[in-house]
Amino acid sequence: MAQAWTLTNRPKGLPKASDFALVEQQSGSLEDGQVRVANRWLSVDPYMRGRMNDVKSYVPPFELGQPMQGHALGEVVESRADAVPVGTMVSHMAGWRDEAVLPADQVQALPPIDVAPQAFLGQLGMPGVTGYFGLLAVAEAKAGDTVFVSAAAGAVGSTVVQLAKAKGMTVIGSAGGAEKCAWVREIGADAVIDYKSGRPIAEALGEAAPKGIDVYFDNVGGDHLDAALAQARLRARFAICGMIEVYNEAKPTSLRHLAQMIGKRVRMQGFIVSDYLDRAGEFYADMGDLVKNGALQRQETVFEGLDATPEAFLALFSGGNTGKMLVKL
Amino acid sequence: MAQAWTLTNRPKGLPKASDFALVEQQSGSLEDGQVRVANRWLSVDPYMRGRMNDVKSYVPPFELGQPMQGHALGEVVESRADAVPVGTMVSHMAGWRDEAVLPADQVQALPPIDVAPQAFLGQLGMPGVTGYFGLLAVAEAKAGDTVFVSAAAGAVGSTVVQLAKAKGMTVIGSAGGAEKCAWVREIGADAVIDYKSGRPIAEALGEAAPKGIDVYFDNVGGDHLDAALAQARLRARFAICGMIEVYNEAKPTSLRHLAQMIGKRVRMQGFIVSDYLDRAGEFYADMGDLVKNGALQRQETVFEGLDATPEAFLALFSGGNTGKMLVKL
Repeated sequence: MAQAWTLTNRPKGLPKASDFALVEQQSGSLEDGQVRVANRWLSVDPYMRGRMNDVKSYVPPFELGQPMQGHALGEVVESRADAVPVGTMVSHMAGWRDEAVLPADQVQALPPIDVAPQAFLGQLGMPGVTGYFGLLAVAEAKAGDTVFVSAAAGAVGSTVVQLAKAKGMTVIGSAGGAEKCAWVREIGADAVIDYKSGRPIAEALGEAAPKGIDVYFDNVGGDHLDAALAQARLRARFAICGMIEVYNEAKPTSLRHLAQMIGKRVRMQGFIVSDYLDRAGEFYADMGDLVKNGALQRQETVFEGLDATPEAFLALFSGGNTGKMLVKL
Repeated sequence: MAQAWTLTNRPKGLPKASDFALVEQQSGSLEDGQVRVANRWLSVDPYMRGRMNDVKSYVPPFELGQPMQGHALGEVVESRADAVPVGTMVSHMAGWRDEAVLPADQVQALPPIDVAPQAFLGQLGMPGVTGYFGLLAVAEAKAGDTVFVSAAAGAVGSTVVQLAKAKGMTVIGSAGGAEKCAWVREIGADAVIDYKSGRPIAEALGEAAPKGIDVYFDNVGGDHLDAALAQARLRARFAICGMIEVYNEAKPTSLRHLAQMIGKRVRMQGFIVSDYLDRAGEFYADMGDLVKNGALQRQETVFEGLDATPEAFLALFSGGNTGKMLVKL
């Protein structure tokens, strides 16, 4: 019997294991045009926290008691759609479950790029698209720029670090703890800030980038954003991608250096990945090469089995992942 | 004997009268290429507060004990420069004094637009250029947009209100107190928010703009900025022009709604007026017509006499002006 995770309560603050329940799903026979997908990899991502609140946002909230959604990869094991035969590896949004029955137009065959399939949930998937267009289109980063990236050991951040290096930029990454910082340096960052060290981020950033920063890729908000404002150079561009600091808390963001954006003509631009989905061709061509030729190293934190999905998700908020957080079924 | 105001101390917080001293100036004979200007109008502006701090910024700090600077208008009363004969009305930066001796290339003859000369310190001067390019270039506001303007009774804000109306936009202005609010409505705002009423600004803005705002012209920062984030529509553009709330205080800006800029793809862009000085021709052509034909009403708060200059400046921070704050000599 197929199984799926549902949300049982709308969490306040950090979700708890008891906010989730694993329920059995009917897996009836297919209708015309449908495929049955046996999921092999599930993605858990920070943005999913937002979908647990009952508020209007850029993605609709999860419905209580219904199977949750998210990016997933799987193999078509039964098909009533000629375009998607049995054996096709596909990506789709019916994650948090082991089996999905979907209309064929809601699954995408993986592009013919010779990499491990789970790369299509990471550097060649949503986090990759986010990092790529956030850095190059939103922040208009170019060779010679000094780029600051927060959550640099995360799925998006580690992509940005490596992509920026591959494109001739100087990169300062921030991560929590010695181990993650060592890894961020290993994948190419010119300097690393351990935000758990107790040292003010603005001070550490000022030392790492004595001439200031041209670009800030924000996954975090809060003190990181304030530090980036303090150290911004003239006409710096900030790509505001995520604010993991505030996803679980109602606390306001306190910025001492916001007014500096006037004199420095800082541009802060919010964006989400779906703004760039129509540029997938450009993305696969450029990033596909970088991933294949090893300019971008893949790093994954893998939890095993459908049972572990909520645990993997919660670990995103306690710094439990280096690189892309995945669940392998 | 000519006189000039000097800064005697670098103020902490709100400046006091005792931070300024009126001193006598030598007014010796002119050198070749110089002109002597008898000042008629002095401008005092919020940005001058920043120049009283000894910090690196987009304009250098005032020097203690030296004549302060600022925009001023005056008449050339003596000239050793053929290009600028006696009787020419000029604008220049040697304000806070009754007489200025300057090289001819540091004064600009007023453009041949038939308005009262003090308009060249207001709607046809720095506040006008700020409002014009902030609204139309930085925020890319266009006909049909809903525009929110803070400090809407101020020199820049009241220009933005009227310009936005002249260009076919819906305008919501915020000002402090019933009298200013009535005036902001009189100059054309579709709705007015009295930020001193005690009602949360975000709530009042939500009522005034039930479909949200496309543009925010920020002169204030703080709660106004947070309210604009809360009520922003998709792809809203914020022109960050000033943050009068923080000029005198070291308190941080606290934003509850900052993370909304991600889902709403808000763009916040800091700018200063000097970025647009090379587009003066375009500005005088368009704004000159609007001012002459009465689409923009002039409103001035005038203090009389050089002695009153610090008092006029300080009144900017206690809400003492409607429209442009000027000192008439």
